[in-house]
Amino acid sequence: MDNFVFKNPTEILFGRGMIAQITERIPAERPVLFLYGGGSIKRNGVYDQVRAALKAHQVIEFGGIEANPVYETCLKAVDEVKAHGVGFILAVGGGSVVDAAKFIAAASLYKGEEPWEILLTGGEEIQAALPLGAVLTLPATGSESNGNAVISRQATHEKLALASGLVFPVFSVLDPETTFTLPKKQVRNGVVDSFVHVMEQYLTFPVYAPLQDRFSESILQTLVEVGPVTLAEPQNYDARAAFMWSATLALNTLIACGVPQDWSTHMIGHELTAFYGLDHAESLAIVLPGVWERELEHKAAKLEQYGVRVWGVQTAQAAIAATEQFFQSLGMPTRLSDYQIDAEEAAEKVRARFTERGTVLGEHQDLTPDAVAAILRSRA
Amino acid sequence: MDNFVFKNPTEILFGRGMIAQITERIPAERPVLFLYGGGSIKRNGVYDQVRAALKAHQVIEFGGIEANPVYETCLKAVDEVKAHGVGFILAVGGGSVVDAAKFIAAASLYKGEEPWEILLTGGEEIQAALPLGAVLTLPATGSESNGNAVISRQATHEKLALASGLVFPVFSVLDPETTFTLPKKQVRNGVVDSFVHVMEQYLTFPVYAPLQDRFSESILQTLVEVGPVTLAEPQNYDARAAFMWSATLALNTLIACGVPQDWSTHMIGHELTAFYGLDHAESLAIVLPGVWERELEHKAAKLEQYGVRVWGVQTAQAAIAATEQFFQSLGMPTRLSDYQIDAEEAAEKVRARFTERGTVLGEHQDLTPDAVAAILRSRA
Repeated sequence: MDNFVFKNPTEILFGRGMIAQITERIPAERPVLFLYGGGSIKRNGVYDQVRAALKAHQVIEFGGIEANPVYETCLKAVDEVKAHGVGFILAVGGGSVVDAAKFIAAASLYKGEEPWEILLTGGEEIQAALPLGAVLTLPATGSESNGNAVISRQATHEKLALASGLVFPVFSVLDPETTFTLPKKQVRNGVVDSFVHVMEQYLTFPVYAPLQDRFSESILQTLVEVGPVTLAEPQNYDARAAFMWSATLALNTLIACGVPQDWSTHMIGHELTAFYGLDHAESLAIVLPGVWERELEHKAAKLEQYGVRVWGVQTAQAAIAATEQFFQSLGMPTRLSDYQIDAEEAAEKVRARFTERGTVLGEHQDLTPDAVAAILRSRA
Repeated sequence: MDNFVFKNPTEILFGRGMIAQITERIPAERPVLFLYGGGSIKRNGVYDQVRAALKAHQVIEFGGIEANPVYETCLKAVDEVKAHGVGFILAVGGGSVVDAAKFIAAASLYKGEEPWEILLTGGEEIQAALPLGAVLTLPATGSESNGNAVISRQATHEKLALASGLVFPVFSVLDPETTFTLPKKQVRNGVVDSFVHVMEQYLTFPVYAPLQDRFSESILQTLVEVGPVTLAEPQNYDARAAFMWSATLALNTLIACGVPQDWSTHMIGHELTAFYGLDHAESLAIVLPGVWERELEHKAAKLEQYGVRVWGVQTAQAAIAATEQFFQSLGMPTRLSDYQIDAEEAAEKVRARFTERGTVLGEHQDLTPDAVAAILRSRA
């Protein structure tokens, strides 16, 4: 096991009716920025629950955060924060809204010239951030209980991530009932996204971390068990609750403790989203099997362990096949051609960008831009 | 799944050489109370590492915390805190030292007349506490990453627990190398203690919490795997590290999220320690199988699941037998007669005390003092 530092101070408020508990957790001295997305929260009752909980607070609303939160939009929210002297940011929505809240919280107190620098340095520039909380309505990204965010810049088609211990939500409400009206596609995306989050922390090479391995496999097994159920029965509270808690634990940094990580699939997937507008999870389902095939030699031991423990199959190849079939069984395409994307073109675009940035991926740092291009060609 | 609130802000510093990282984490403005036990830390190098890390701090040493920390001793430490204006308590040792630090941290700021009231109310009286940190040298209690403590009062042979969100350690250092010189008996105790901690949160009745169940089973499987190895090979870093991390996660409140709990075995065990001086883990190994036999009807579903997933056996009775055999394989006795304790006498003593206190145990609140007495008689 490698050395590690683990700290996750986010308070989780889980279950029916827990939105009411935010009242006492948000300081009332200064205005609250109430951040949300496209307005679905106004149709499913969440908006009303939040307003009721904040009836004694001064609330500044800011809607319109995009599914892949956009830098230019976030800067408008920063202007609101500064104009009103906002003291707390409440993100209500999916991971994109929570991600945006983190960036806004940091950018509002940023002392440099151009807040994009926060993203160019991956969050290292963050010296302070406003406190933030979340009411999560879409289980998927894990953003409700970590210090990570991904922001896209429209002008340049760039999508960059930040990580900082200063932007963990103070609290996050996870009420499974708030997710009952989600479109099936978003639930499918959430299951796949959570599944791949686990994989980026688990599917590398063995370092004798038996508990972390078993925790990762526990999340995978649970997603395999409840994924189809929660898609078929959106109002099944038990299944949705198990899925929601799995999605949070998939990326609250616990399973990453003391083990190597490989975020190749995400890094490559981000480019497919930036260039072609694929949903985040759609991009992951395409890329993951390709990364595994390419890295088969390095990843064989963990692929075999995963195959045996999660799928009851005996070989690395069978484990890869079972994974792709699982994604497809959820209605998730796994090939570029499913989206009429030319694999050769995608390979060249991503190769060019990674070459320009000097990006090399993989837990062994062996996925060069050429290797990434080969992966994308293999996913035609 | 039941509703829950989960918050665990403790920062874990895990691995070789991590003691050095406490320097920057302890405020240097006020004196630090350096709390420890019987002095083993002076023989294994931990004392020197801590003093080196605190060379720029003003340090007040307080040694002699007992294996079951004693109220009267803790009050002397509170006097030291007040006399020197201590601003931070650093516990260096096993769970007993960490438990003592928590009580001292709360008692030092207690405004009532008699700090024992903190324990009589289970910690509810705690309004404030000094910040504390830990350097853990004995994996067992989980105290390094929770808000619980157990304190014994010599004068009355009482042993009571407190729980409070205000006494979580700010940080805990877990360096497996600091545990290499532990006596075998303490390692054996630690494995059993951790194992039973999981059981008190897992072995009740199903509420469809599949991820919590699998996390619990992951810890149990890992303890079964590494327990014998770490006993036989105390300097095997990998095995000791896996054991140490398992012991922490067994009682950092994560696996308790959203599920019923049953702390009967601990409550009964505490009395055996108070009356007969048994080690905490020794008392648990005696009581646990008895509680399960008594509650077989209510616990059958989870016992069967546990048997299948952890031991590969098919019945509840076989799961109970496998557990008792596991304890014995670690060199842990499981009967009162192994300690020349008269079961009839023990049953009557505990029955009398629980009757006096009105204690009723079990997740269904059906373990009356009479039922507890029957359990103890069955463990002759």
